[in-house]
Amino acid sequence: MQFLEITSAQNPSLKHLVKLRDRRTREKEQLTLLEGYRELTRSIGYGMELTEVYFSPEHFLGSNEYPLLESIAARGIKVVRLAPHLLEKVTYRERPEGLLAVAKMRQHELEDLPEYENMLYLVAETIEKPGNLGSMLRSADASGTDALIVCERMTDLYNPNVIRASTGAIFSVPTAVCDNGAALKYLRDRNVKILAATPHTDFKYTDVDLTQPVAVVVGAEQTGLTDFWMEQADLKVNIPMLGEIDSLNVASAATILLYEAARQRNFKKREK
Amino acid sequence: MQFLEITSAQNPSLKHLVKLRDRRTREKEQLTLLEGYRELTRSIGYGMELTEVYFSPEHFLGSNEYPLLESIAARGIKVVRLAPHLLEKVTYRERPEGLLAVAKMRQHELEDLPEYENMLYLVAETIEKPGNLGSMLRSADASGTDALIVCERMTDLYNPNVIRASTGAIFSVPTAVCDNGAALKYLRDRNVKILAATPHTDFKYTDVDLTQPVAVVVGAEQTGLTDFWMEQADLKVNIPMLGEIDSLNVASAATILLYEAARQRNFKKREK
Repeated sequence: MQFLEITSAQNPSLKHLVKLRDRRTREKEQLTLLEGYRELTRSIGYGMELTEVYFSPEHFLGSNEYPLLESIAARGIKVVRLAPHLLEKVTYRERPEGLLAVAKMRQHELEDLPEYENMLYLVAETIEKPGNLGSMLRSADASGTDALIVCERMTDLYNPNVIRASTGAIFSVPTAVCDNGAALKYLRDRNVKILAATPHTDFKYTDVDLTQPVAVVVGAEQTGLTDFWMEQADLKVNIPMLGEIDSLNVASAATILLYEAARQRNFKKREK
Repeated sequence: MQFLEITSAQNPSLKHLVKLRDRRTREKEQLTLLEGYRELTRSIGYGMELTEVYFSPEHFLGSNEYPLLESIAARGIKVVRLAPHLLEKVTYRERPEGLLAVAKMRQHELEDLPEYENMLYLVAETIEKPGNLGSMLRSADASGTDALIVCERMTDLYNPNVIRASTGAIFSVPTAVCDNGAALKYLRDRNVKILAATPHTDFKYTDVDLTQPVAVVVGAEQTGLTDFWMEQADLKVNIPMLGEIDSLNVASAATILLYEAARQRNFKKREK
């Protein structure tokens, strides 16, 4: 199969790709960038809508790229070859894999979250670092967390570094983006217990019943949970700190709590 | 107290600071850079030897900086004011705090690790990302892990981003840096069980006895543990994956395993 090729930095499509590196452009156009073989295949598998795909065979790591590109082109999506130095202009990666797609952002409404018995939610308030949000998405996926609610976000969910750090979990974990008030109302309406970690309690995280409907709420990297959530918490637990620095990365703390819930739920995979 | 001030980018001390941003220079000179109020106070508290300290009051976040600087100067350490645009040239941070120190790297020999009953080790093989190594240091500290062994390192331990992500745990967690063979011999000589996580076992991480002397071994971000460790593992466990992507960040996986050990050890703080 033959593909069109862009060799000039003045090409309008290339200029558009460069603009999409900026968050404001992404939000205005409701588009995002996906990179790499794994992200592209997973995003398609989870129903993301790609609008354009770019590639530079000079950067390919394997031999599966062409079959993927052909299947994408067969679906009527524009597939364009980029001269390697142009791909390097638009990649987010130190070691690009030669595959880059433009995709439509999905909407993330609370009303679209799935509902099961004894839901397990992760609520992430004002997380700043894309790597942390990505790690939490992976832990949410792996621990069988049913949904993620991102409140008062500092990092946009479709930041390419979130997508990358999530290794695809951004596509698999049902996620809503909203403000604190809407999230609280949604959880209260469904009788979900709010769990907050704090040193100011004698209850360990292993002491409380996490098999009931529960939302693990974690706060910003530097400042932790706001009073808004701390005051609303039904379950306050401490994660024992046995060292000298006594601080956990927010994604690590979330992971400990979600895996404790998974353990109490006998690591049972949700029937969907 | 009055301090010398550097206002020229041509100043040799400033040029030296710029050079220390390069790993090879740091390793050759066995020096590293520390930034920020928390890192400086903690590094001093844990016995790091500072050789020079630079500051720009224009970037200070609080009012504790001057007392800290005065106590540092009182110990005979060179303290120099930097024009704010010069500090911006040498900082690693997006939002610098106006404090930067040059410190001597410590030696990290296996022989210097502490030894207690039923030691809990974390062994990290070929970790690539400073943020992951930093997160693991925090989790090691918080979970009461007695020592970290960094094998076949890809990231240098004194990379300023490791120091920062560790929030000081790099100073508190006893750490050795060595090759795989030396680490294995050290652990075997002490009858420490090697624990590896792998999907290819029916034993869950919660099924094995982690109160005995044990080393949790984790591998590279992309490729996981090498055969070297997988073949040596006495305890192979799986971390159940209940989602669709089924992959955890390496620091998250380490955290789950270390906190399971802490739980089995009744979250008991080590008497030292």
